[in-house]
Amino acid sequence: MEKIYRNIEEIKEKKPLVHSITNYVTVNDCANILLACGASPIMADDEQEVEEITSICSSLSLNIGTLNSRTIKSMELAGKKANEISNPVIFDPVGVGASHFRTETAKKLINKIKMSVIRGNVSEIMTIAKGAGNTVGVDADDRDAVTENNLEMKIEIIKRLSEELDSIIAVTGAIDIVTDSKKTYIIRNGHPMMSQITGAGCMLTALIAAFCGADQNYLIEATVSAVVLMGLSGEKAYEKIKQENLGTASYRVALIDEISKITSKEMETGAKIEIR
Amino acid sequence: MEKIYRNIEEIKEKKPLVHSITNYVTVNDCANILLACGASPIMADDEQEVEEITSICSSLSLNIGTLNSRTIKSMELAGKKANEISNPVIFDPVGVGASHFRTETAKKLINKIKMSVIRGNVSEIMTIAKGAGNTVGVDADDRDAVTENNLEMKIEIIKRLSEELDSIIAVTGAIDIVTDSKKTYIIRNGHPMMSQITGAGCMLTALIAAFCGADQNYLIEATVSAVVLMGLSGEKAYEKIKQENLGTASYRVALIDEISKITSKEMETGAKIEIR
Amino acid sequence: MEKIYRNIEEIKEKKPLVHSITNYVTVNDCANILLACGASPIMADDEQEVEEITSICSSLSLNIGTLNSRTIKSMELAGKKANEISNPVIFDPVGVGASHFRTETAKKLINKIKMSVIRGNVSEIMTIAKGAGNTVGVDADDRDAVTENNLEMKIEIIKRLSEELDSIIAVTGAIDIVTDSKKTYIIRNGHPMMSQITGAGCMLTALIAAFCGADQNYLIEATVSAVVLMGLSGEKAYEKIKQENLGTASYRVALIDEISKITSKEMETGAKIEIR
Repeated sequence: MEKIYRNIEEIKEKKPLVHSITNYVTVNDCANILLACGASPIMADDEQEVEEITSICSSLSLNIGTLNSRTIKSMELAGKKANEISNPVIFDPVGVGASHFRTETAKKLINKIKMSVIRGNVSEIMTIAKGAGNTVGVDADDRDAVTENNLEMKIEIIKRLSEELDSIIAVTGAIDIVTDSKKTYIIRNGHPMMSQITGAGCMLTALIAAFCGADQNYLIEATVSAVVLMGLSGEKAYEKIKQENLGTASYRVALIDEISKITSKEMETGAKIEIR
Repeated sequence: MEKIYRNIEEIKEKKPLVHSITNYVTVNDCANILLACGASPIMADDEQEVEEITSICSSLSLNIGTLNSRTIKSMELAGKKANEISNPVIFDPVGVGASHFRTETAKKLINKIKMSVIRGNVSEIMTIAKGAGNTVGVDADDRDAVTENNLEMKIEIIKRLSEELDSIIAVTGAIDIVTDSKKTYIIRNGHPMMSQITGAGCMLTALIAAFCGADQNYLIEATVSAVVLMGLSGEKAYEKIKQENLGTASYRVALIDEISKITSKEMETGAKIEIR
Repeated sequence: MEKIYRNIEEIKEKKPLVHSITNYVTVNDCANILLACGASPIMADDEQEVEEITSICSSLSLNIGTLNSRTIKSMELAGKKANEISNPVIFDPVGVGASHFRTETAKKLINKIKMSVIRGNVSEIMTIAKGAGNTVGVDADDRDAVTENNLEMKIEIIKRLSEELDSIIAVTGAIDIVTDSKKTYIIRNGHPMMSQITGAGCMLTALIAAFCGADQNYLIEATVSAVVLMGLSGEKAYEKIKQENLGTASYRVALIDEISKITSKEMETGAKIEIR
């Protein structure tokens, strides 16, 4: 078990600089959660500086939540530079499948940039799997949530996608799946209230980038650690909200608070991980 | 009275998908308030995808708070598509009158797109009324707040604007007026502290889009319900803030919390609506 | 001492309108902190309206946190207009030195626009000092934090930069230095937790713009007042967070809360200012 967890204390000590090209809806939450876990955020999206900014960072996070023509080019440039200097690239294909523009752009980015980790909800990841040369045949029903009943089938599709793209795939939702095609982790932390605030997915992607930036030799362990951290903080935040009868905005505050306070001891105790 | 209120529970059940092209100042608040009331937000502003995104949504919210050349075209495209498929379009002419650019753009959008609801503060709505071919002669004094003394006169101007544009007009402030020119609702919920946080207006526009998206056959009732929901939550949030001696940032959190917790029973009890 | 402090009550009374062209990461925080201190925010960045918007405002805040090609032109136009009508311009060179694009743009803006106040962390200000025709020879070590040991040397560099640019320079961090080259203020308020949330610097820049907008005849006093207000609120927020064992997101809420609640009497009592 010793290498499953990256220490949250390690993040606070190494303070990895994370370059994010992300959407303007949840960008503030992403910056704050990066600081909360001990990392340091830089948001820079102009094509005149993205390569240089990526060069001084430990990892790169690309998020297409409010995709626009101007930043696609920036994502490409930053991604290629990150590949060149062997920085991990974490990709969040927000809303892929909702428009051709998103689907085509996501495909293009995946083709041009080696993604270390792709994190999405199950619909997003299934869309990418379907689009990948039709080698993985999935249909609309597969977009449904991961459940204990369809878990095996989902894992198979996700593992094949991971192998095909040579990327770690993280599908997050009620049940989370993280795989590098050889090893697969099922994580059962989290709380439904996480879906009642905007940005839980984007924030998790930012956390993965922080953990991967802190130690590039253990990317799957870093990804699993970030997923556990987010889920566990979501559980702890809910306890607080329930006790004080608060609502969704307080939940968001409590969630980031927990990220900033959690210890690796608490992560070890609370983690619900199954390895397959 | 049965059709004045749209049930907040109905929103949570139908989960209307709301497409917002909005400003980057309050966009996170708008996404979070949509989730808090039970709706689902999509923020997408690139002209390559806005029509497609609008097509999968139940309503469209257009907000010119940080208007820029790039997104005007996107607003036009999305608005026309929404009109084509009979989705309600909610328009928030933020800061109209503060620059020619905003005034001209607001006029152009109103000319090109059938707006189901236009929501603004009294100065914004008066600016639109004045600019509409001078058929409604108002002068600078009319930009003052709606008071019990000038209420009749304001209602007249707003009703005429509503008739002229064939849009529901919602003027919000200390006293709120909602009219479709035939029926007029005066709502006296709310709290002055709502003006001490950014985005109270933008968030209300988002709520109107959620309610209109949930049932397109009762647009004025939907608009009134959203205005009541916002005002009442503003009152309840103030109670909390006063009790615990908190400040404006806590007020914002409490306001969204209340939106996420309120029941339609509470709305019925707390609503202060007068129909004329 | 009578003119060191601008009254926070004066801001609430005068309600200065502050035009901000700023980054999309912390823009919401900046708008909320402006409202919290009693000022009124307008965020507008399209070149078709920035001059007009600046004309109706009391001050202009320029922040290059998410610099992009589109808004550089807008910053130039707004800055020149502000100079023309003698409105104070407050400049925040976020991340200058992290890329050539930022460094070159910051230099260009400083050359074209008379900045009333430039606020940054010590690395940012040292980068500007170094780039200023090499008249101030500093090396990489000078980018380190201001400490009691190197304070004299830092003050000398900053005073020379202030003289050269004819701008008030505010270097903020553990120890804050504000100088107009003739008079120098050392401020020792604040708390380390301020660096664990995004935007503490941007928010302070916004506050300086509010205070300078309220009374353009006492710019250095206004700047010092804003720095004290931010630092003191940071201290008070920490007391609350410690007491209730909260995390970084609650700290952000508490910080803005304190800004909205503080009185000038509290500012006088809590300020730790040394004048040299």
